[in-house]
Amino acid sequence: MTDKLEEYFQYVEDNQAFFIEQLAEVVAIPSVSCEAERRSEVIKMGNWLESRMKALGVTVKLAELGDQMLEGKKIPLPPVVLGKYGEDPAKKTLTIYGHYDVQPANFSDGWDTEPFTLVETEDGRLVGRGSTDDKGPVIGWLLCLEAHQKLGIEIPVNLNFCFEGMEESGSIGLEELIHEEADKWFKNTNYTCICDNYWLGTTKPCLTYGLRGNNYYHIEVSGPAADLHSGVFGGVVHEPMTALIQVMSKLVDSHGKILIPGLYDQVAELTPEEEKTYEGLSFKNEDIISDLKSDVLAHKSETDTLKARWRYPSLSLHGVEGAFYSSGCKTVIPAKVIGKFSIRSVPNMEIDTINELVIKYITEQFALTESKCTINVKCEHSGRWWYASPNHPNYIAGSRAVKRVFNTEPEFTREGGSIPITITFEEELKANVLLLPMGSANDGAHSTNEKVNKYNYINGIKLFGAYWQEIANL
Amino acid sequence: MTDKLEEYFQYVEDNQAFFIEQLAEVVAIPSVSCEAERRSEVIKMGNWLESRMKALGVTVKLAELGDQMLEGKKIPLPPVVLGKYGEDPAKKTLTIYGHYDVQPANFSDGWDTEPFTLVETEDGRLVGRGSTDDKGPVIGWLLCLEAHQKLGIEIPVNLNFCFEGMEESGSIGLEELIHEEADKWFKNTNYTCICDNYWLGTTKPCLTYGLRGNNYYHIEVSGPAADLHSGVFGGVVHEPMTALIQVMSKLVDSHGKILIPGLYDQVAELTPEEEKTYEGLSFKNEDIISDLKSDVLAHKSETDTLKARWRYPSLSLHGVEGAFYSSGCKTVIPAKVIGKFSIRSVPNMEIDTINELVIKYITEQFALTESKCTINVKCEHSGRWWYASPNHPNYIAGSRAVKRVFNTEPEFTREGGSIPITITFEEELKANVLLLPMGSANDGAHSTNEKVNKYNYINGIKLFGAYWQEIANL
Repeated sequence: MTDKLEEYFQYVEDNQAFFIEQLAEVVAIPSVSCEAERRSEVIKMGNWLESRMKALGVTVKLAELGDQMLEGKKIPLPPVVLGKYGEDPAKKTLTIYGHYDVQPANFSDGWDTEPFTLVETEDGRLVGRGSTDDKGPVIGWLLCLEAHQKLGIEIPVNLNFCFEGMEESGSIGLEELIHEEADKWFKNTNYTCICDNYWLGTTKPCLTYGLRGNNYYHIEVSGPAADLHSGVFGGVVHEPMTALIQVMSKLVDSHGKILIPGLYDQVAELTPEEEKTYEGLSFKNEDIISDLKSDVLAHKSETDTLKARWRYPSLSLHGVEGAFYSSGCKTVIPAKVIGKFSIRSVPNMEIDTINELVIKYITEQFALTESKCTINVKCEHSGRWWYASPNHPNYIAGSRAVKRVFNTEPEFTREGGSIPITITFEEELKANVLLLPMGSANDGAHSTNEKVNKYNYINGIKLFGAYWQEIANL
Repeated sequence: MTDKLEEYFQYVEDNQAFFIEQLAEVVAIPSVSCEAERRSEVIKMGNWLESRMKALGVTVKLAELGDQMLEGKKIPLPPVVLGKYGEDPAKKTLTIYGHYDVQPANFSDGWDTEPFTLVETEDGRLVGRGSTDDKGPVIGWLLCLEAHQKLGIEIPVNLNFCFEGMEESGSIGLEELIHEEADKWFKNTNYTCICDNYWLGTTKPCLTYGLRGNNYYHIEVSGPAADLHSGVFGGVVHEPMTALIQVMSKLVDSHGKILIPGLYDQVAELTPEEEKTYEGLSFKNEDIISDLKSDVLAHKSETDTLKARWRYPSLSLHGVEGAFYSSGCKTVIPAKVIGKFSIRSVPNMEIDTINELVIKYITEQFALTESKCTINVKCEHSGRWWYASPNHPNYIAGSRAVKRVFNTEPEFTREGGSIPITITFEEELKANVLLLPMGSANDGAHSTNEKVNKYNYINGIKLFGAYWQEIANL
């Protein structure tokens, strides 16, 4: 078996040029899901996958999700491309998720090269929109499958592909589809693997076993029926903006400490075992300072920074709807303002408990302002945190695969953000989910000059094959 | 003389239909100064005035102010239409200011009728954009002049007209022009009259002798070089928005009390004499509550409401530039945010002292947050308050004119807002300025269904003639 993997690795090494050509081909399709006029390109990309997969003998089903209103137009949602390869009851079944849509990109945003033309740089970067997020991983899985076929190596697991085209635009309809197909298309899934995040640093591969949740709130404060002139009404009325700002100022301090009583009570205690997991990770505060071009770090040690990102809640104030937001000066008293903030949640915080504490506290704080305006606090949406045991067999297989390709143990990491589909897969398929990143921390997924390192792309494709094998070996 | 005024009044009564036709003619020119594509209409309106005035024997000079960049286009500024009628050294010289541009208006904004078609309603309203602000008053002066000519009544004062076309868009260039022409075109001005504000209520005419000033501030708080994702960086960095909201929350309380130490020290003491001037004014808190469709009044008595508007400073928080302001939910940590607020100033507050107190206090409050972000507080623009003695001869003439037309004493009022050109005229021409409104409190100057009551328009034209006479009688 090991010999076959060696053979596979060699094949990947020998076919780098072809793999990069394939990436160039898909990067060239500007499948930007948030732009109505490019919706046809997203669908084109879905169709590209469909024919590529069919050519590999994959049974493909395009799950159509209906229409969407975007920019005032009714346009079709791109299909979720479902693929099935192998249904051998003697093998484990692996469900693989990826997405084929991308973020917007224009040369004028500050790209050094045309975003939808893949460029290989001398220092080994493959630059182009979608290269790392998430087209590299998506076609990586297919190239891995094709390589096995060309080498005559049997695929050691049954494969279930789920490639969506709306990840960058809210994954409309995907949750319902997974629910619908849980006992049908996805039946018998033993393990799930999502390749849509990044290494902690730039040198060491990792497996990711935790995500923070997010509760997003709107605080609406209303006063007069229409906006007022501050000359005529300043000092005469209770202004909604004044009360809102008072309330928003009571939520969090500059150091990031949340001021809502009881909120930290639900946070899991830091055990000595967990404490150890922060040691020796390839993470430097200096890298953040250099990325942000400014030292606004709230913590002195690397460990504290990672704890703040991974295992403690945070509260960010995002903005105010309804107030004056342009440049210049406008002497308006806004009639209705909506303050926006969100709380990143961690084990073992419960969504409902957070909501209760938040709404009670804000209501109290608003009462203290004695404003005659009215307030309405709402949780606009919420997503639970996610935490998987890094000792689960799925992670053991991932870990062994990393060792096999990179000759090092993976780092075990968590993320500060959310990937809501992770929880959906876990709950609906009742199977463990492994987040197995291909790209590196500085890939700039949603930014200008997005890239995947050739090293990460080629070794990522190797890793996929090794992972299949290690799943089979469990 | 009285007989002649009676004759004039009768003429105005008899020619109402013609006066309304004339108003309809100018309302039909959509001279919206803030829209580049309608700039030609503003200029057309200026030219309409020029020929109308020339036909009345007025010496006209179009003061050209050069070009302006608007919506990315270089377009000409509309001219200030200067007019001179009579240079008799035996007569007093009166400078009259008005503006011929208007606010934007679209039927779709919620107008009951087309905004640029004057409609006379059964309940006596003349509805149309510019009807009260400020085309009614502007042509009112010309119709008054024409009526005198038709009746063969000598104009008892020398007239200096100054009609601008950019009042709704910052009066670009006007201050410089007045400075330039102070000893030329405006030479020998004894009194100035501005008809561009409103009665305190809806039934009693008034003379206005005070305005609040305004200092507008930007608080800029910067952190990272670019916006961050709150999942990845929430809790990890000091967020600019957190510090800004903390600082903004320390400026004013919900009751409107300004929290900046020392700010009230400069406010003129309330004397028993002044206290008396608030008695018996035709102003009801109930009217405001009904207009705002909400009781958010900060004061219980009418007197306290008017004091808050006229003679005490106020601080309004207008909004935040750089933060998330749309509907929906965005998990952004804004990299740079600019909080906007302004302070309405009153006698005897000094602009420089206000600035010193504000900047010192905000800098201190920001330091207390311990944020690693950086702050920059700037006064973006400032305008002084204005206060004229209601016992000045110009006001006595105005008062007598009101008595003559309306058979009642005028109310003496102040305004909460600013009319910066008032101070410019007073300082440059070294002559007292009277604010002599034509319209009523509920005209909705910048709003939908702007109107001037036929009663106000017709009697306003009478008032102008009476005022000329009373100036001559002084």
